[in-house]
Amino acid sequence: MSTPPPVIVTVTLNAALDVTYRVDRLRPGGTNRVGSVRERAGGKGVNTARVLAALGRPVLVTGLVGGVTGDQFRRDLESSGLRCLLTSVRQHSRRTVAVVEDEGAGAVTGLWEPGPQVSAEEWSRFAEHDFPAALDGAAAVVLSGSLPPGVPDDAYAVLLRRAAGLGVPGLLDADGEALRAGLAGRPALVKPNAEEAARATGAQDPAEAAARLCALGAAAAVVTAGPDGLFGRTAEGLAWHTPAPRRVQGNPTGAGDAATAALARALADRAPWPQATADAAALAAAAVAAPLAGDYDPDLYRELTHRQLTQRHKEI
Amino acid sequence: MSTPPPVIVTVTLNAALDVTYRVDRLRPGGTNRVGSVRERAGGKGVNTARVLAALGRPVLVTGLVGGVTGDQFRRDLESSGLRCLLTSVRQHSRRTVAVVEDEGAGAVTGLWEPGPQVSAEEWSRFAEHDFPAALDGAAAVVLSGSLPPGVPDDAYAVLLRRAAGLGVPGLLDADGEALRAGLAGRPALVKPNAEEAARATGAQDPAEAAARLCALGAAAAVVTAGPDGLFGRTAEGLAWHTPAPRRVQGNPTGAGDAATAALARALADRAPWPQATADAAALAAAAVAAPLAGDYDPDLYRELTHRQLTQRHKEI
Repeated sequence: MSTPPPVIVTVTLNAALDVTYRVDRLRPGGTNRVGSVRERAGGKGVNTARVLAALGRPVLVTGLVGGVTGDQFRRDLESSGLRCLLTSVRQHSRRTVAVVEDEGAGAVTGLWEPGPQVSAEEWSRFAEHDFPAALDGAAAVVLSGSLPPGVPDDAYAVLLRRAAGLGVPGLLDADGEALRAGLAGRPALVKPNAEEAARATGAQDPAEAAARLCALGAAAAVVTAGPDGLFGRTAEGLAWHTPAPRRVQGNPTGAGDAATAALARALADRAPWPQATADAAALAAAAVAAPLAGDYDPDLYRELTHRQLTQRHKEI
Repeated sequence: MSTPPPVIVTVTLNAALDVTYRVDRLRPGGTNRVGSVRERAGGKGVNTARVLAALGRPVLVTGLVGGVTGDQFRRDLESSGLRCLLTSVRQHSRRTVAVVEDEGAGAVTGLWEPGPQVSAEEWSRFAEHDFPAALDGAAAVVLSGSLPPGVPDDAYAVLLRRAAGLGVPGLLDADGEALRAGLAGRPALVKPNAEEAARATGAQDPAEAAARLCALGAAAAVVTAGPDGLFGRTAEGLAWHTPAPRRVQGNPTGAGDAATAALARALADRAPWPQATADAAALAAAAVAAPLAGDYDPDLYRELTHRQLTQRHKEI
């Protein structure tokens, strides 16, 4: 019997219960009867963990959760068979409500609650105790998403340094100040999308943004640019472009998290870069074809992986 | 020491957790960051119970609740000091989300989740055991609001007959089929607003609608018509109109529930009708002046009560 591969840890500091309301048509200013309600543990880190688990990789979901929404989040992960080691906070985790219209263009209106106010004691319990404990024997750690109020802006830098000290490479997938300040923690890989990369670096060109992300502290950067593919860069100066596979119709939510899952697996396995981004491009496209974030179409993934790996990557 | 007055029981079959989201401006089709979230046990029966408790009357809140929203509902009532005897159902109680815009006209967009599917066993546990038990020693019972899926349309008729059998007069405050079918249970008083009364009877005129509600089974009917006042009628043929006190600026949500509270108290105390509706008109106006449903402005209530009671009611 072969040993299972070592665990990949995900970090979700601002856990969210994803709620989907279906309505015929949203009437602003009126009373709308919701046809159906679906609730699910959400957020980038959880989507990434779901994809990794579906790929057969052991995962451990960590983060901060509180209140009845935190309890629902925890129960949903357990019922999905995802192992978790979650740190309790006093205030309740947020709900992110998506109101989906069944008529017309199928517009989605988001209502995002603010995250819980995390105390200094709660944050240090996570950073100094639960997080290092979760990393024991881990092959990689993925730090994704926004920070709740009370958690310092440089939280990801703190966690990345701690992970590096324990020999665990870190992947950072964040936006805004959490991304900018996190780069100081020297992630093994940073993976923003093109808009996030532009906000953090000022460079509109994804290849240039990837280079700047390395200059700001990342050992490697992969900037995802939707149909334009992925732009890779290492601090050593290797630069490459992986085109997106053929266009896939579907739900782009979660495609970035699927790419993160592929890149985290590559980080854990120390796979070579162009192979890693080819895999990420195929898995992201297969995620677009699946209805739910955190899921992917396995047949399409197999087909696209084969194509991507027989295709040449362009060094730039 | 004087004995406290006997308890007034409220019935909330389709319990709701009222959630208020404040946003600057609702952008349909976009992602809206919610500035603040407030959660509170809601629904007509609960608002009525809050007003009765504020009037110093002992109340007992009954109904069907389930899931984490049911637990939050229960805890909120307990923290408000409202006694309750709630029947647990397997599916979770609904949330009624109000998205309030702080900019512009302060429009409110409602998102009402569907109620839980109640099983026949859960319904009969309430109707045959918990409800009669709650009525022990009660002076009146208030049946308010919608029915969740699975509860029969004639639920209020069933409960009104049971209450009458125990010598407890019932006040019915409902809409649609729950109101129409409930009238067969011969409520001591039915109290719809003018639109609800028109839907149930076909009569657009509130005085005529009140007469028809009596013809359909109610011993007495009070139809509330906002600034046009209240229209009363008894099965014996007494008909009267109580004008609304001077116009009050504020939040009309909950004004009807305050009127229900005043009328339930009158029913419990066997107060004469014109006095009851004068009190209801004053309390409803004082509720408009208070920011939250279930609350009222006590100074305004005192002032308006004095005025109403010194004013002549017009028999019609």
